[in-house]
Amino acid sequence: MNRLERQIGFLVELDKAKDVFRQSYVTSGERKENDAEHMWHLALFVLVLAEHAAEPIDVVKVLKMVLLHDIVEIDAGDTYIYDEVAKATQAVREGQAADRIYGLLPPDQQAELRDVWEEFEARITPESRFAAAVDRLQPLLLNLATQGRAWRDHGMTAERVWAVNAKIAEGSPALWAYVEGLLRDAVERGYLPEA
Amino acid sequence: MNRLERQIGFLVELDKAKDVFRQSYVTSGERKENDAEHMWHLALFVLVLAEHAAEPIDVVKVLKMVLLHDIVEIDAGDTYIYDEVAKATQAVREGQAADRIYGLLPPDQQAELRDVWEEFEARITPESRFAAAVDRLQPLLLNLATQGRAWRDHGMTAERVWAVNAKIAEGSPALWAYVEGLLRDAVERGYLPEA
Repeated sequence: MNRLERQIGFLVELDKAKDVFRQSYVTSGERKENDAEHMWHLALFVLVLAEHAAEPIDVVKVLKMVLLHDIVEIDAGDTYIYDEVAKATQAVREGQAADRIYGLLPPDQQAELRDVWEEFEARITPESRFAAAVDRLQPLLLNLATQGRAWRDHGMTAERVWAVNAKIAEGSPALWAYVEGLLRDAVERGYLPEA
Repeated sequence: MNRLERQIGFLVELDKAKDVFRQSYVTSGERKENDAEHMWHLALFVLVLAEHAAEPIDVVKVLKMVLLHDIVEIDAGDTYIYDEVAKATQAVREGQAADRIYGLLPPDQQAELRDVWEEFEARITPESRFAAAVDRLQPLLLNLATQGRAWRDHGMTAERVWAVNAKIAEGSPALWAYVEGLLRDAVERGYLPEA
């Protein structure tokens, strides 16, 4: 295969992210969201909310991170952020998936895009912390727009949701302050039981 | 509403793009693709294929274009690229949709993102021509991966597909040369009747 054929092979393979379903419901409430939709939505979050990042960020790098961050789930499946059992094996499953999927690309692009994904996973740089913040904010907003439906499905409590989402503050204190207000409101409205 | 509330309002509204369905089938062939998935997929096409652009391009600008280009369809609906009747009213319907949807943003972002969309629509800059090229290439690859299913649904012929997709050459002669080979192959395999 020549360079362009490898690139096209990778891009056609990515279509499968449209069949990987997450726990969040879309705001119409009729079905769950898939990874492709989620990655698109996050890219828009980055474009619109970048000014709220905790530190100066390279917006293009963050865009690449969110556009790629879940493609390993084509092989590894979605791991629910509140599922501690699945999270224990997540890194190994996703590493194998990355070998196969990024391996479809020509070597230079394989290295470049996989590096972006590894940087996202490591959560050390300002870019990865901001990407992780919007990756938590987006499903939270979908949950609020559907009266906490995915939280109810999984019997989540406010305490647990607070603990998992507090990491938003590492990427953006401004967004976390806003989210805290939304969560307090969700508890008051009864979308999220306190315990 | 303050600035952040307007930004969040826009982002939650965009969720509706997940309910706007296109004519293309996803590669599993089980259902049609929606706008959110399509825009995500195009962003990856841009990241991976930018080197094949006809002229030097600002990749970030093209990314913004493809990530936004179909959000007006939340109000205006999808217009099939081969549907000449719907195409006659498309500009007016989409202009009204843009007024409402971009109007949800704070004024500075409203102007910035709407300008990106207008530039995409005008097809004058190298960035918009490359964005338009991948916007044609992606559904074409989905069609080929599903034995020409959307083409069959609409009784398309090779001649018509050739005419509409030849514009790919304006954004990328290299991609068009590749597509011509794929289309010849599709005709040989019987996915696309010659007339």
